[in-house]
Amino acid sequence: MSSGVEMSGLNQSQKLTLPEKLVYFFAAGEAEGNAGMKNVLGGKGANLAEMTSLGLPVPPGFTISTEICEAFYANNQELPAELRAEVLVALEKVETKLGKKFGDEENPLLVSVRSGARVSMPGMMDTILNLGLNDKTLTGLAKQSGNERFAWDSYRRFLQMYSNVVMGMNISLLEVSLEDLKDSKGYKEDTELTVDDLKGLVEKFKKQILETTGKVFPMDPMDQLWGAIRAVFLSWNTHRAITYRELNSIPASWGTAVNVQSMVFGNMGEDSATGVAFTRDPSTGEKVFFGEFLVNAQGEDVVAGIRTPQPITQAEASKKGMKSLEELMPESYQQLVEVYKNLENHYRDMQDIEFTIEKGSLWMLQTRTGKRTAAASLKIACDMLDEGLIEKDEALLRLDPKALDQLLHPRLDPDAEKTLITKGLPASPGGAVGEICFTSEDAVNLRAQGKKGILVRIETSPEDIEGMDAAAGILTSRGGMTSHAAVVARGMGKCCVAGAGDLDVDYKKKELRVGSYVFREGDMLTLDGSTGEVFQGEVRTIEPTLDSNFERIMKMADETRTMGVRTNADTPADAKTARDFGAEGIGLCRTEHMFFGADRIDSIREMIMAEQLEERRRALTKLLPMQRDDFKGLFEAMNGLPVTIRLLDPPLHEFLPHTEEELEELATRLDVNKDKLRTRVRSLSEFNPMLGHRGCRLAITYPEIYEMQARAIAMAACDVMDQGQALVPEIMIPLVGVADELLKLRRLVEDVVKDVQLERKKNFDFLVGTMIELPRAALTADQIAEHADFFSFGTNDLTQTTLGISRDDAGKFLSTYVSEGLFNADPFASIDVGGVGQLVEMGVKRGRMAKAGLKLGICGEHGGDPASIEFFQKAGLDYVSCSPYRVPIARLAAARAAIIQRGVAH
Amino acid sequence: MSSGVEMSGLNQSQKLTLPEKLVYFFAAGEAEGNAGMKNVLGGKGANLAEMTSLGLPVPPGFTISTEICEAFYANNQELPAELRAEVLVALEKVETKLGKKFGDEENPLLVSVRSGARVSMPGMMDTILNLGLNDKTLTGLAKQSGNERFAWDSYRRFLQMYSNVVMGMNISLLEVSLEDLKDSKGYKEDTELTVDDLKGLVEKFKKQILETTGKVFPMDPMDQLWGAIRAVFLSWNTHRAITYRELNSIPASWGTAVNVQSMVFGNMGEDSATGVAFTRDPSTGEKVFFGEFLVNAQGEDVVAGIRTPQPITQAEASKKGMKSLEELMPESYQQLVEVYKNLENHYRDMQDIEFTIEKGSLWMLQTRTGKRTAAASLKIACDMLDEGLIEKDEALLRLDPKALDQLLHPRLDPDAEKTLITKGLPASPGGAVGEICFTSEDAVNLRAQGKKGILVRIETSPEDIEGMDAAAGILTSRGGMTSHAAVVARGMGKCCVAGAGDLDVDYKKKELRVGSYVFREGDMLTLDGSTGEVFQGEVRTIEPTLDSNFERIMKMADETRTMGVRTNADTPADAKTARDFGAEGIGLCRTEHMFFGADRIDSIREMIMAEQLEERRRALTKLLPMQRDDFKGLFEAMNGLPVTIRLLDPPLHEFLPHTEEELEELATRLDVNKDKLRTRVRSLSEFNPMLGHRGCRLAITYPEIYEMQARAIAMAACDVMDQGQALVPEIMIPLVGVADELLKLRRLVEDVVKDVQLERKKNFDFLVGTMIELPRAALTADQIAEHADFFSFGTNDLTQTTLGISRDDAGKFLSTYVSEGLFNADPFASIDVGGVGQLVEMGVKRGRMAKAGLKLGICGEHGGDPASIEFFQKAGLDYVSCSPYRVPIARLAAARAAIIQRGVAH
Repeated sequence: MSSGVEMSGLNQSQKLTLPEKLVYFFAAGEAEGNAGMKNVLGGKGANLAEMTSLGLPVPPGFTISTEICEAFYANNQELPAELRAEVLVALEKVETKLGKKFGDEENPLLVSVRSGARVSMPGMMDTILNLGLNDKTLTGLAKQSGNERFAWDSYRRFLQMYSNVVMGMNISLLEVSLEDLKDSKGYKEDTELTVDDLKGLVEKFKKQILETTGKVFPMDPMDQLWGAIRAVFLSWNTHRAITYRELNSIPASWGTAVNVQSMVFGNMGEDSATGVAFTRDPSTGEKVFFGEFLVNAQGEDVVAGIRTPQPITQAEASKKGMKSLEELMPESYQQLVEVYKNLENHYRDMQDIEFTIEKGSLWMLQTRTGKRTAAASLKIACDMLDEGLIEKDEALLRLDPKALDQLLHPRLDPDAEKTLITKGLPASPGGAVGEICFTSEDAVNLRAQGKKGILVRIETSPEDIEGMDAAAGILTSRGGMTSHAAVVARGMGKCCVAGAGDLDVDYKKKELRVGSYVFREGDMLTLDGSTGEVFQGEVRTIEPTLDSNFERIMKMADETRTMGVRTNADTPADAKTARDFGAEGIGLCRTEHMFFGADRIDSIREMIMAEQLEERRRALTKLLPMQRDDFKGLFEAMNGLPVTIRLLDPPLHEFLPHTEEELEELATRLDVNKDKLRTRVRSLSEFNPMLGHRGCRLAITYPEIYEMQARAIAMAACDVMDQGQALVPEIMIPLVGVADELLKLRRLVEDVVKDVQLERKKNFDFLVGTMIELPRAALTADQIAEHADFFSFGTNDLTQTTLGISRDDAGKFLSTYVSEGLFNADPFASIDVGGVGQLVEMGVKRGRMAKAGLKLGICGEHGGDPASIEFFQKAGLDYVSCSPYRVPIARLAAARAAIIQRGVAH
Repeated sequence: MSSGVEMSGLNQSQKLTLPEKLVYFFAAGEAEGNAGMKNVLGGKGANLAEMTSLGLPVPPGFTISTEICEAFYANNQELPAELRAEVLVALEKVETKLGKKFGDEENPLLVSVRSGARVSMPGMMDTILNLGLNDKTLTGLAKQSGNERFAWDSYRRFLQMYSNVVMGMNISLLEVSLEDLKDSKGYKEDTELTVDDLKGLVEKFKKQILETTGKVFPMDPMDQLWGAIRAVFLSWNTHRAITYRELNSIPASWGTAVNVQSMVFGNMGEDSATGVAFTRDPSTGEKVFFGEFLVNAQGEDVVAGIRTPQPITQAEASKKGMKSLEELMPESYQQLVEVYKNLENHYRDMQDIEFTIEKGSLWMLQTRTGKRTAAASLKIACDMLDEGLIEKDEALLRLDPKALDQLLHPRLDPDAEKTLITKGLPASPGGAVGEICFTSEDAVNLRAQGKKGILVRIETSPEDIEGMDAAAGILTSRGGMTSHAAVVARGMGKCCVAGAGDLDVDYKKKELRVGSYVFREGDMLTLDGSTGEVFQGEVRTIEPTLDSNFERIMKMADETRTMGVRTNADTPADAKTARDFGAEGIGLCRTEHMFFGADRIDSIREMIMAEQLEERRRALTKLLPMQRDDFKGLFEAMNGLPVTIRLLDPPLHEFLPHTEEELEELATRLDVNKDKLRTRVRSLSEFNPMLGHRGCRLAITYPEIYEMQARAIAMAACDVMDQGQALVPEIMIPLVGVADELLKLRRLVEDVVKDVQLERKKNFDFLVGTMIELPRAALTADQIAEHADFFSFGTNDLTQTTLGISRDDAGKFLSTYVSEGLFNADPFASIDVGGVGQLVEMGVKRGRMAKAGLKLGICGEHGGDPASIEFFQKAGLDYVSCSPYRVPIARLAAARAAIIQRGVAH
């Protein structure tokens, strides 16, 4: 890919045919793009064009198409020559509109250069402000603004940003000089810097930049502009951008647009301000205008969390004893309220907007669909439905099923004993308990060890994305509700407490101090993201209760979806949870989980140790009443809903001890010869247990195991019938690869069940089906279907065998595969449609060909994954089955899948 | 299947529609069947009918169709009522022909009842002679034969056989009585028994039978007949029959016919005899009449090996100082010679015949295609071609490719030092070295331990089949060239020395004594099946040399086949062997095998231990010259023929030590920290290595490994070009599941090869292809083909993943699967056409759809399996690749597959 020789500047594009139009201009009611052109203009650019057309006050500018990004990378990171002319034309139009000139010493045009991808990637891409400033245009800016200090401050900010983003200068080097200067002068705030201080700083910065990068800071504004444009395109492939794309399944091919827009200044004095706002509350979804601003500040200051911003509305501000925009700049506030209403009605969704007030004039810099918590998304959907803004299908399509997750997980028990140590902003709701860690890397390591981490940072930055994803919760000491930490955590549905200002975070010592408390790395901490509270140690959590919006949306989803939603549950407790979440049956009960209980593991071990059939039967006889109770409990919990029980699946060695101590202890307890036990353990051990003596293969060699289980199921069924309950047990044979396996074991099960029915003088229907979890099963589904009442696709094992990848061992290469784009997503999380999907489709088609009414479901992890559910809908499955907490996600995802399949979606 | 209640007698058939005709009569030139009806009449019955029609002297009788066997099992082991009438009609016809009556006291008809399946299953099925004898008919037999002793001897034989086969009597119980009697009287041979001895024995037998089985021995000949017919059908499903079917891939559904035939007696005195013969020598294929006989004996005596038989021809007999049939009964001999010529010309193949001479009259009891050694099969095919008896295609179709195996394996080195301990008959050629074992079970156990066994038996019986299959060689102290041991061993292509009469085999002490030698279980022994010699200890073996018949057949095969035959070879030595056997290239060179050499394993370990890319590169640099030499050696050995090199495939932990001692030793040798090494070993270990970090996944994460290998290949190619040799290396990327893997690694390989070409100023073409060994690869073969010059189906791994069966772990259940008919054959030996085959076909079709000229081969174990090769021909592959010793098998199998596909076969 890389040419080896770095070339800057423009060059004839060689590999891609360029589109006809490369640059899209917008100014004062006249825009060449619109909101529908996100693929070409990126989200930001498309919405700037749309706002311009709506007549909103948008600083004039232009957007360079995302297609140039693709061309840039296809052409050895060189920009196409055709671009220069179009940029110059657009720039001239901006100059004309504003009566300023780019690079002019008297009345210079300054611009911002920003990235903007098809979907919002907050903080992922680099931004440069005040571009066009140099030693000469600086004077013009000072004259035009009548504020020399402002001009010099803008210049030093530009030097910092540009040298970092475009020239690769380490950002902290210049910051150290700034802090040193402030220290030497005894300043606390940047605002205390004088014009002379700033002049000195600019000279120092220039020198430092030359020394560090070996390059003179470019004085030609055109050079600055092309450098910045290149930098935006390059930022598309930084590590942090790639990580974000991975986490959000964004294709690398989309590319980013570049937005070049004339500058407006929120830092021109006390009549200037800058802020971000949401048209509704992004935490609760309440229909209130909600936002934060800073007086006399530049845009990035709000998001970066350097100063703690003030609420926009009076209602919020008075709660905190702060001054609101409503109070300080009532005219601008009124104008802003008009704008937000206009935008929400126009876009028919909650908007996240950025604005700047320059000397009393309002300018809109961005609008986009606002990220929100799951609870807020439900409320907004319901409210907008009631307001007549959207229809039912659209409401469902708006909701991200995965985000429901945050509603379904435990929160802190209000009655638990807690020691509050401090309070921050309730940035993203839910409770989180975990070990303190201070770096993204440590958070990732904790997760790898199967532990939960609380990532503690002064503030977060895009570099922390991986750690934020890995941590159970995020705690910052700086930044507001719209800080990076807050926005990203909400997007992830992750608990976050932001801006807990009392915290003293010491990265070096890896300590966190609050008052007299000192916490060290590894200490336990609990966060309540819904209140902003931070507690010492581990606080008890409780199950969530779901509000009426949730119930309403779920009801709408149930009315809409065509696929059933069942659950994977092995215990009555799980079954109950799942029913409460709306499960319509059990799609998978893994009977082996029942064997690990302390009261029964020894019986199964006796069975495994038996050398003779009779011994084996004796041990199984001990297990029979326990299994019978297990199944009875499940049947009772599901109260007539279908229950699918999978007969024993794992290899027998899973039940035997693995260490020498365990082995000795067991030999003593069971009173068997230690050597004999060791020999048995050794003889059962396998090179590839995943492909070993398991599933129905166990029953082909030891039919008495399934006989016992079938008997237990039949007896439990009779038991609940005695209690007056009707039921149709579904008995599932795992790992079938050959039709005759199913035929043979079906007969075995039928014989046993009929025997029990005869003994108990009861009659009930029952189904015998199989998992389709081997490629051979999918390939011969027509033959297997002849002996099956139902199929359940076991997509976990089907993925392992089809791809030849052991889930347990894939960690060493799977992330590389995802990051290099060899897989679009982890195939164990989201079904590999191109490979495994073909086998599922084949299984469905051939199965139904042989038996028209064959019931088809899926019980792998994919049963709770929205993208996979969309595929299963297309494939024609009757139901999905997933873990209890994923049932609501699956219900919503199935509804969306049904809508998409109907083609009603727009 | 089983009804639980045993029902004897006849019953209305309920589940199967019976064919119109159930019984086929044959007598004196008139037969209702013919040789083409083997499916219905079994081999024996069809040939009895055919011989009858040819006018040969065949005792009259009838055959009950194989379809009754199916009906019998489908109907709870009950015979259909319709059968009775047809049997009675046929029996009456026999009575009429012979002027005897079944059950008549004056002139009783006696019959034999024999099984007869579609293909010969020697010794597998039970036989009953002299049926129809009882206390009354006995007198008639005595009168008619004029030999009271003969009649009583026949009766006691009948009691023994019938009680054993039909009534389940333990055969040794009656034998003990016989031996006791002989001991008490001081007799050595059965022939010394007097009429009174025999009378007493008959009474004693009857009593013993009643006591042991609780049933009176049936006196009604019709009861005897129906009991015998049932017993034949039941014998179809005995353990030994099932084992034989498994070993020979005979479907359980075929069933057996029952042949009921009037008795003729070879034991009526010195003018009577019985024998078996081959129309050509079954060991060498020489065109000489070849057989053995016993005077005054009943048929089973020859095969059972109780007495050592005499050669039929004078030429043979005089070598051994024995009397021949030619000499003793010249008329019968001449008649027999006429018959055999007649039969061979009629069947156009070497026949194995059974005959009896009753008081000077010759009777034919059986003819069938004779089993023969591989060498004999080649010679006979060539001779018959020359004789104009058969055509080229037929000659090829006659040959069993698998049997060639015995020609290709080492034989004893004639120059090796040997200590001859005894000599037996050269019953089945080849050399065998192994540990002495005395039971079938021990032979099976030895094989399970990876050891070679020599199965030593006094004589073998069908119960020994499994052990004979497991042993490297078979040695018996009794029996001739047509004994059970000899016939079965030849069929298996297994070395056998039979009838080594000096041996004293003591089963109890597990000792073998010959003269002053005493060998115990576990001692090493060497057999030469081509000379009949038995040697002490382990004798050196040498490579086989192949005769002109072999060369001629191979040439014919090469002219006929359309698929190429390559070899799997990792060393120049293997490559040379394979070329000598006719390999047309290397289809698979497994480069990992090269890394295990003592001089390089440490370098690969250094590479694995490296934490940094640079360290890894350094270690790889050490391996580069070694790999270059490896490849150069292969290129030279193949001298321009295609060479396919597979880049590194196994997971890296395979190269690391696995025990603590090895680990410590290695840590010291490499001078690395022991704990660090242990940590690395642990971090690389995998739960399911088969599905782990291996194949191209290694190169996605560590591209430098394949870079080194590609460089070594390119350098070696340049080296041999320097020597004036042209070549087109084929570089194969393993375990591709996603097209982009291949694309990425193809580019890597191309870049490296082009770099080397530039450096060396050489140009050569090279191919980059992939293994299709994952279901996903077959399913997406169209996408993968876009980046591949060739596919090689890796059917070993494809079988493991498609069936979800680890080859290493399958031992615990695979044999049950085969014996219970869930698999027709071991899917790792013969391709699973119904499952894996579908993916191969899909891979072929989709691959060629995307790229018409795509070269397609197969390099799994199946590449040397004739049944699989037939499938690969149909699937349209361009070549198969197999281990060097299998190359001739593959050449012949490919020729046969081509003929079958052409439909020329009849």
